Order: sequence, then C-alpha cells, then structure tokens
Amino acid sequence: MPAPARSQSPTAEARPGDAYVQSFARGLEVIRSFSAAAPRQTLSEVAGRTGLTRAGARRILLTLQTLGYVESDGRLFALTPRILDLGFAYLSSMPIWNIAEPVMETLVEQVKESCSAGVLEGTDIVYVLRVSTRKIMRNTLGVGSRLPAYCTSLGRMLLAGRPDDEVLRLLRASKLEARTRHSLTDKDAILAKVQQARRQGWCLVNQELEEGLVSIAAPVLDRAGRTIAALNISGQANRTPPRQMQETMLPALREAAAQVSQRLLMA
Amino acid sequence: MPAPARSQSPTAEARPGDAYVQSFARGLEVIRSFSAAAPRQTLSEVAGRTGLTRAGARRILLTLQTLGYVESDGRLFALTPRILDLGFAYLSSMPIWNIAEPVMETLVEQVKESCSAGVLEGTDIVYVLRVSTRKIMRNTLGVGSRLPAYCTSLGRMLLAGRPDDEVLRLLRASKLEARTRHSLTDKDAILAKVQQARRQGWCLVNQELEEGLVSIAAPVLDRAGRTIAALNISGQANRTPPRQMQETMLPALREAAAQVSQRLLMA
Repeated sequence: MPAPARSQSPTAEARPGDAYVQSFARGLEVIRSFSAAAPRQTLSEVAGRTGLTRAGARRILLTLQTLGYVESDGRLFALTPRILDLGFAYLSSMPIWNIAEPVMETLVEQVKESCSAGVLEGTDIVYVLRVSTRKIMRNTLGVGSRLPAYCTSLGRMLLAGRPDDEVLRLLRASKLEARTRHSLTDKDAILAKVQQARRQGWCLVNQELEEGLVSIAAPVLDRAGRTIAALNISGQANRTPPRQMQETMLPALREAAAQVSQRLLMA
Repeated sequence: MPAPARSQSPTAEARPGDAYVQSFARGLEVIRSFSAAAPRQTLSEVAGRTGLTRAGARRILLTLQTLGYVESDGRLFALTPRILDLGFAYLSSMPIWNIAEPVMETLVEQVKESCSAGVLEGTDIVYVLRVSTRKIMRNTLGVGSRLPAYCTSLGRMLLAGRPDDEVLRLLRASKLEARTRHSLTDKDAILAKVQQARRQGWCLVNQELEEGLVSIAAPVLDRAGRTIAALNISGQANRTPPRQMQETMLPALREAAAQVSQRLLMA
C-alpha cells in the first residue's frame, strides 16, 4: 500500500499522518461516488470523481469487490445491496426509529398526509424514516436523502434545538437560495423563524422549499430535553391551506412527537 | 500507517498484499460493529468486536469522526446519520426502486397487506423497499435488513432465477433450520419448491419462516429476462389462509411485478 500522498480536508483533531487513515477515507469516497447519475462506473470514472489515481481507485474497487460490496463485469463497477449493511448499522443502532414508526403510522392514518422523521447533519437534514400516504401527490424523498435545513420545517425545528450562535454559524455555512417566491434568504429573517419555532415548540414552512408544498414540524426530545430529531407532515397548499393544516393537523403531530419522546424515556 | 499484517479472507482475484487495501476493509468492519445491541461503543469494545488492536481501532474511529460518520463524547463512539449516505449511494443508483415504489403503493392499497421488494445477496435476501399497511400486525422489517433466502418467498423466487447448480451451492452454504413445524430443511425438497416457483412464475411460503406468516412473491425481470428482484406480500394465516391469498392477492401481485419489469424497460 502506498504511503498517504496528500491530506483530504481532515480537521485538526485527527492529525493527518498520525491517526488519519487516508486509504480508508478514500475508500468511503469511492462508495459515495456512485449515484443515480453514475450507477455504473468504469475505473477511470471512479478515479475522476474521487480524485484518486487509476491504480488507487482500482485497489479500492477490488477490495470492495472482494468484500462483496461491489460487483463488476470486468469493465463497469456497481454497488451491491450489501452496502446497505453499513447504513443499516446506524438505523438499527437507534432505538428511536423502532419507537417512532408505529406512532408515525397512526399519525398518517389520522391526518391522511405523509410523515417524515429527520435529524440534523451539518447544514442539512437527513431523512431517517418516512411513512407516506397512498396519494398520487407524494413526497418521494426516501431514507438517507438530504435537504438544506434553512428552508425546511424539519430543519428549522432542529436548528431551534441549538443555541443562536450555532444557528448563525450553520446559516452562514449554508447556501441560502430563493427556491420559490416565498423563500426567506436573509440570515436574520431565518434566525427569527428559528427562534419562533423554539418559543412555540413547532414550526410551519409555507412553500419556501417548493411551490405548493407546506410542512409543519415538531421536535423529539431526549431525557435531558435536547432536540434529537423532528417529525413533520407535508401537504399541498391547494388542498390544505397552511391555516387549516395548523388547526387540523398540528395538534396530532405535536402529540405524536411528544409520544415518541415519552416512549424514548422508557426505552 | 502500519503495513497490512494479515489477510482477511480475500478471494484469489484480489491478491491480498497487492490490490487488497487492508485498512479500508478493517474500517468497514468498524462501521459494521455498531448495531442495535451495540449502538455506543468504547474503543476497547470496537477493538474487541473487529479483532483490531486498540491503536488500529482508534485510528479508524478518529478518521470516521473527522469525516463526520462517527461522533464521540471522548469515551463512547456512535455512528451519525451521515453514514446513511453510503447506503443511499446504492439505493439512488438503482432506478428500479423509484419505479417500484408507486406500483407497490397501489398494490398495498388494493390488497391491504404489506408489500416488500428484495434482492438476493449471497444466501440472504436483502429488503430494499417496503410499503406497509397501517394494521397493528405489521411486518417491521426495514430497508437493509436480511433474512435467509431458503425459507422465504422472496428468497425462493430469487433463487428460481439462478440455475439449479447455483441454487444447490447456495443451499449447501445456508444453515437450513426448522424455524417452525412447517419448515422444509431438506436441500432437495427446497430445490423442488424453487423449481416449482420457476415453472409457475410465483412462489408461496406457508409459515416456514414464522408461525402464522404466509407470503407470496413474484419476480421483477430485466430486459434480458433475468430475475433482478422480487416483490412479495405477507399476510397472517388466520386472517388470510394461503388458498385465499393465492386467489385474491396473487393476480394483483403478479400484475404489479410485471408492471415494474415493464416500466424498467422504458427507464
């Protein structure tokens, strides 16, 4: 194995060259280089997308193939479902999702709209659970997908669980875009919404992510009162105006989030 | 970084010491060492579960922490939701799941039972998509979870897509257990069921995995007619006896699986 040739944006704590295992970090980059846009890649494509040399990319791909995480016809490489073992280790290590699922299913049954659970990951929210309705207009975001925190109800609710200075730091690190004509893009205006969410214990975002999409979120708290996740309901503005959503669905959503928090205490 | 000290069951193709990147393989083992039974681990626990030295485990954990895949309070380590990116790379790289989801939702609406999609991974099936009903008796197996192929309808349907000699090889590699009093554990008896599934184009397994659980499966085929996945419906024997399941649900299931195959051709 060649010696690490260059650092890959490691932070100070890990001291590259000492504790940082370059080849491991690069291997994970190879896994992430596969996507809907690049489901099957040649060696050169993997090298191009990861910044590895062809020889380096080849060693990682053959290692992944040996371990059963990648399959190849000799020219094209693709991930195998075994790769789900890695993400699944996370999901199965969090009792909260086993607790949240039945509560969310009951909620969806009640309000007839989809419900998702998400957590904060840097400036993004990551969906960890989703229970959808059987309607045609569905939210098709699956587990593991991401959206920016600043313009989503889940995101603002999760930001509300952090102190203001951290919220501002995360907003500064975010690319604040006007995704619709309703979008807030001013840091202080978004902070004000986050503070409002913190005060009232819930958050509504009206068509800031997508024209026609309204969503409300409520927090899941741990034993110490820290926000560890949030649940949301999304609906269509033309079918369920924001005011109606707030009146008819918010109480059930808050009750569901409180139930998950409560059951977590007993877990 | 220390030189690779020992091989970790790599196959001949990968030529350990040459192409095989030991530190990468060990890093993936560290990720897999987290589970529902071990959601938070100390350095020693990770070392114990992976067979790494404490120093080796520490380097991998610090690298994962630097990359944001692991968080730590200084003593205990836990995976972060960023780890889902790795599994998401797979799911998003497979257009089939975007195609299958709405078809499966319509099917669940129709038959009022849960529907799952799975693929074969060695001797196991891996669930890649699940649409559940809102009933109390739910199948709680989530995406990424596994079951043995030999005793499940998805598994036998997927095995039916392989030639007999490969089916026998996989059955020999499986631990054939009697999970219920209905379970087949004889290799040849299971092969006969697989052959039957191949002939008829569907498969029913009656309480061989779990007392009271009946499931039927149908294959999803690619352009070349190869079985690339299977869909199933599970139900409770006391509510829906096997015969009734076959009469009332099988046509809808086969239609759904055929629709997914058909839409894949156009993708």
